[in-house]
Amino acid sequence: MTDQPLKAAILGASGYTGAETVRILRNHPNVTPVAATGNALAGKKLSGIFPHLRGKHDLDVIKAEDVDWNGVDVVFGCLPHGTSQDLIETLPAHVKVVDLSSDYRFRDADLYSQAYGREHIAPERTAKAIYGLSEHNGEQMMGSNLVACPGCYPTAILMVLLPLMKPMIIDRDAIIIDAKSGATGAGRGLKEGNLFSEVTEGLHAYGVGTHRHTPEIEQELNLRAGLNDIEVTFTPHLIPMARGEHVTCHLRGDVDSIHAALSAAYADQPFVSVLPLGSPPPDTRHVRGTNDCRIAVFKDRAKGRVIVIAVIDNLVKGSSGQAIQNLNLMMGWDQALGLDALLPLFP
Amino acid sequence: MTDQPLKAAILGASGYTGAETVRILRNHPNVTPVAATGNALAGKKLSGIFPHLRGKHDLDVIKAEDVDWNGVDVVFGCLPHGTSQDLIETLPAHVKVVDLSSDYRFRDADLYSQAYGREHIAPERTAKAIYGLSEHNGEQMMGSNLVACPGCYPTAILMVLLPLMKPMIIDRDAIIIDAKSGATGAGRGLKEGNLFSEVTEGLHAYGVGTHRHTPEIEQELNLRAGLNDIEVTFTPHLIPMARGEHVTCHLRGDVDSIHAALSAAYADQPFVSVLPLGSPPPDTRHVRGTNDCRIAVFKDRAKGRVIVIAVIDNLVKGSSGQAIQNLNLMMGWDQALGLDALLPLFP
Amino acid sequence: MTDQPLKAAILGASGYTGAETVRILRNHPNVTPVAATGNALAGKKLSGIFPHLRGKHDLDVIKAEDVDWNGVDVVFGCLPHGTSQDLIETLPAHVKVVDLSSDYRFRDADLYSQAYGREHIAPERTAKAIYGLSEHNGEQMMGSNLVACPGCYPTAILMVLLPLMKPMIIDRDAIIIDAKSGATGAGRGLKEGNLFSEVTEGLHAYGVGTHRHTPEIEQELNLRAGLNDIEVTFTPHLIPMARGEHVTCHLRGDVDSIHAALSAAYADQPFVSVLPLGSPPPDTRHVRGTNDCRIAVFKDRAKGRVIVIAVIDNLVKGSSGQAIQNLNLMMGWDQALGLDALLPLFP
Amino acid sequence: MTDQPLKAAILGASGYTGAETVRILRNHPNVTPVAATGNALAGKKLSGIFPHLRGKHDLDVIKAEDVDWNGVDVVFGCLPHGTSQDLIETLPAHVKVVDLSSDYRFRDADLYSQAYGREHIAPERTAKAIYGLSEHNGEQMMGSNLVACPGCYPTAILMVLLPLMKPMIIDRDAIIIDAKSGATGAGRGLKEGNLFSEVTEGLHAYGVGTHRHTPEIEQELNLRAGLNDIEVTFTPHLIPMARGEHVTCHLRGDVDSIHAALSAAYADQPFVSVLPLGSPPPDTRHVRGTNDCRIAVFKDRAKGRVIVIAVIDNLVKGSSGQAIQNLNLMMGWDQALGLDALLPLFP
Repeated sequence: MTDQPLKAAILGASGYTGAETVRILRNHPNVTPVAATGNALAGKKLSGIFPHLRGKHDLDVIKAEDVDWNGVDVVFGCLPHGTSQDLIETLPAHVKVVDLSSDYRFRDADLYSQAYGREHIAPERTAKAIYGLSEHNGEQMMGSNLVACPGCYPTAILMVLLPLMKPMIIDRDAIIIDAKSGATGAGRGLKEGNLFSEVTEGLHAYGVGTHRHTPEIEQELNLRAGLNDIEVTFTPHLIPMARGEHVTCHLRGDVDSIHAALSAAYADQPFVSVLPLGSPPPDTRHVRGTNDCRIAVFKDRAKGRVIVIAVIDNLVKGSSGQAIQNLNLMMGWDQALGLDALLPLFP
Repeated sequence: MTDQPLKAAILGASGYTGAETVRILRNHPNVTPVAATGNALAGKKLSGIFPHLRGKHDLDVIKAEDVDWNGVDVVFGCLPHGTSQDLIETLPAHVKVVDLSSDYRFRDADLYSQAYGREHIAPERTAKAIYGLSEHNGEQMMGSNLVACPGCYPTAILMVLLPLMKPMIIDRDAIIIDAKSGATGAGRGLKEGNLFSEVTEGLHAYGVGTHRHTPEIEQELNLRAGLNDIEVTFTPHLIPMARGEHVTCHLRGDVDSIHAALSAAYADQPFVSVLPLGSPPPDTRHVRGTNDCRIAVFKDRAKGRVIVIAVIDNLVKGSSGQAIQNLNLMMGWDQALGLDALLPLFP
Repeated sequence: MTDQPLKAAILGASGYTGAETVRILRNHPNVTPVAATGNALAGKKLSGIFPHLRGKHDLDVIKAEDVDWNGVDVVFGCLPHGTSQDLIETLPAHVKVVDLSSDYRFRDADLYSQAYGREHIAPERTAKAIYGLSEHNGEQMMGSNLVACPGCYPTAILMVLLPLMKPMIIDRDAIIIDAKSGATGAGRGLKEGNLFSEVTEGLHAYGVGTHRHTPEIEQELNLRAGLNDIEVTFTPHLIPMARGEHVTCHLRGDVDSIHAALSAAYADQPFVSVLPLGSPPPDTRHVRGTNDCRIAVFKDRAKGRVIVIAVIDNLVKGSSGQAIQNLNLMMGWDQALGLDALLPLFP
Repeated sequence: MTDQPLKAAILGASGYTGAETVRILRNHPNVTPVAATGNALAGKKLSGIFPHLRGKHDLDVIKAEDVDWNGVDVVFGCLPHGTSQDLIETLPAHVKVVDLSSDYRFRDADLYSQAYGREHIAPERTAKAIYGLSEHNGEQMMGSNLVACPGCYPTAILMVLLPLMKPMIIDRDAIIIDAKSGATGAGRGLKEGNLFSEVTEGLHAYGVGTHRHTPEIEQELNLRAGLNDIEVTFTPHLIPMARGEHVTCHLRGDVDSIHAALSAAYADQPFVSVLPLGSPPPDTRHVRGTNDCRIAVFKDRAKGRVIVIAVIDNLVKGSSGQAIQNLNLMMGWDQALGLDALLPLFP
């Protein structure tokens, strides 16, 4: 415990990741949210926008320009890409940043431009930001001032693939990822395709062959493998559920080596569990509302093929939970602080 | 805090309320689950039946007859009615009982027989059991050895109606309750009507005019009012959602008096909030996963009519959460122990 | 069959009722959709907006001002209230109108203004429009040029209550209607509250005590009863499903008289069935995708109280299906034309 | 039209495919259901089991042994595997059979035994049954007495892959199929895993590496390719929706060749449409309730990889609809008879 709780501002509190960050922080002993920004809704109570927060953590939503930064130690950036860097680059130097947008995920600002269609305003800074996949880059985070949290898909996918990037475990030219996400993955944007009646009782793929998380995934795989030509197929699908993310990785390799590499990688990690071979497939329901990631490995009927599945809650391990875990790592605290009281909600 | 945690056995751990009790107890500082019974599934791990509990609280499921009662201080009875009394009446005297079934809810064993179609085997004991609506009968629970938790519907309904039972607040001859519940309210029984494909994307009433919670509600209302002829209309509906309960009480009376009586009743209660007049209607999502109850009062267009709405999570405040709250009250502890870390899951 | 199919224009084809009207008309032998308007989306294919219509009935969406009215015999008005009258009042006299908005539902334009907050631009015309509850006003429709289809809630509710408006069947001072609707009832408007993640797995009431369908219901009840002081309580709830509407009418009266009055009223109607006493409660799933209405009557445990339930598909009998049935009646055709091939989709 | 409608018996009418067959037949001009069997529920009305059929096609459910086979021209076998052959092999020779179970899908009875764990009682008959993928084997069906309808997954998958089995279109050693199905795909069996509360708001894979549809798919691919070593990876997932099936085929090949081969294969087919390149991904909602299959082809970012998606309604094109289409083909009728009035239900 610290003597004084860290004071946190949530930038973009009117979206799902903003609200989820406030929600989870309620159980954090070392951090107190002191400000919530949201330009369009400034002047409202946060609990007026998200009534579930009533009586839990309530805050007034204010404009970013009205925050007193002297009273803020850390920000959680829950803004859309682009908007995020525009604000973050104006913050005073003493403010630590945990950014949940895609703005600082690319080491190479040109890659960012290609994927997101705008110039990066701080290319040197993005080059030095830590890519916040907690279990893999935790040591680098300690003392860092800027951590870029991975996208929800890359979080689950890299958790599977990074430990397999050593030579001879899998065929790195035959990585196929079929991913499924609940509707909160698309954020709170007002589009017909996000309406209840157009999501319930059906299923479709999106961003087929073109999704912006693919270069992010490839960046980290190549970096880990010391290569530059790993390409993956990544095909996401929108599932009629609010939360949850399921990645099915179709690989070529040896089932035992894969299971061993994954088990070794996460043996001491509180939030990642690799199920014993022969376990039933994990379910997104088993981790709903928690910071947990479950991984299972299956031998296929077809020779030399292996299926690895990982499940997370996209709003927790896939965004706000991992962001808080990253803050814990930046501060040198127990990484589970504020996260271990989260219990899976089933049914 | 106690020196030694209380040791709890969960009877009937393979149903939803059993699993939910184990789940919530993980955050309770003073209680440790030491046994979980389930005759058909004895020999399995509880996390084999409910994988979401893996790595949280795991237990071996054993037969009730194999429990070492010397190592048990309290049982949570999560068995079906009938089965519950048959086991509870065999327990040694030192074991405290929090029963979630309907077996000890009726002061009058004949009422029980009429509603449930079998003789009660312990009519004197049911006459003395405390009806465990926490906010209303908390004082009587302290030191009691047998608390009968209310049904999920009666919990939400009585929370609204009990404070209105004084003369001159509402017309006690015109109480209409239209209730809606998620599918976990029906338990884990294997019936076609509980299958996903027959619950999703539709809605129906059930038990119309005949539901067994009606005499339970009327018992408590008459007792509180000092009358014996209050009758209510109670019509429940099955909603395509897993958790959540919403009661819409159509009353005749004065909106301000009703709001004042409810506000006064729960002014100091941590889990029940009466929303200010003019608030938007509460939503079951706002309390999902928590022990909270939210109540709102509305004036109707039609003269002299008032609508009062209450929402709870049927598996928490409507069963396992209230059961734990009741144990806290029996033991003289802070009633929120183990329950205040529960955060609403939205979206 | 007619010699030449009637040529229909759908005004406002980019909303759900517009698309549903086009969809159902595909099976109509006497009507051909020739134009679909939608100002914001003009220039697109209707199947680009609603891909399910691809290969069924496809049309180009055009601006209302670009319709050649000489080639149009009838319009289905699927526009929002207000917008609807503004366009309909400009149509040439030979064009018959079936309006699905609320613009012509009130005989008294002042009532309209009170409920909808704007002056009616054609008070004499609304006074003469036929209120299109098919089973009740079918004879008046024959030869009419303007039929105003009831709201989805009033359709189901009046189907229950109109036959009970004779003296001595029910207590007309104690009518309580608790209604439940799927999310398509709110249309295709882009609001946070209509997003999948904010509708799934939860439930809330809305418009409590103030909904605009209440005066519409009261108008018809008073008219039928020859009274002017009937007031009803009407409380709608949003259910996590796309289609379906369920009304639970809590009444005082005699169960047999009520059942007899309803059975007599619909004995010869192809789309309305009154279930035998003792039947299980009807389910919205049983009528999903059809123009059917099912009604069931239940005696309550409480003396003198009766519950009557009706279910419809809000997009079919509650809007587009009834609109087509009304056109059939206007033209003197079999009222089931184009509607009897619709089969309920279960599961 | 025939002079006399064909008289059909539905074997196993108390499951979803049985009910769906009865439902769809209502619109068939040439076929009349005359008997519905279901041993456990014999004596009930079919509409008592499936109330949505009330007033549409109603039948008494009887025991199979009580059917008067002289009055039956064709049976639709909607029984579980094993049970199906046991009954079908006892039928008189004049009765045509359209079997929806897996019992006659394998040319080689040994393959059946391996996959389904029991000996086949009529190996010669299964060797001669026509594999009822309507668009591919329609000519062979004419005059046949026994058609074995494909599984729901093989239907969608083979529709994509069969036209690609010529040399040089795709790499036949790198076929990965990631499939997603609604809960009706699992039938009406009473298992905890099929309960609403355990299917809603989550997602999991099943039968990973071991599903029994894999050898069925491989049989047809090898037969078409004239090979015997094609192996596929097939990984199905249970999606929280009642109906719908979505297959995502991850292939290696040239996008234009693949699109051309598929477009050519289905150019004249009324129920299969291959979307133009560049179309948005198809959605199971677009075909819900219909016999349609939609296919779309996408070029991946990664060199040489192509994604092909197909969607069907598993209860229509994936079972009962295709069964009726097959009967049409057996009889030499228009294959769309009774199926073209089915309209997609969206939303």
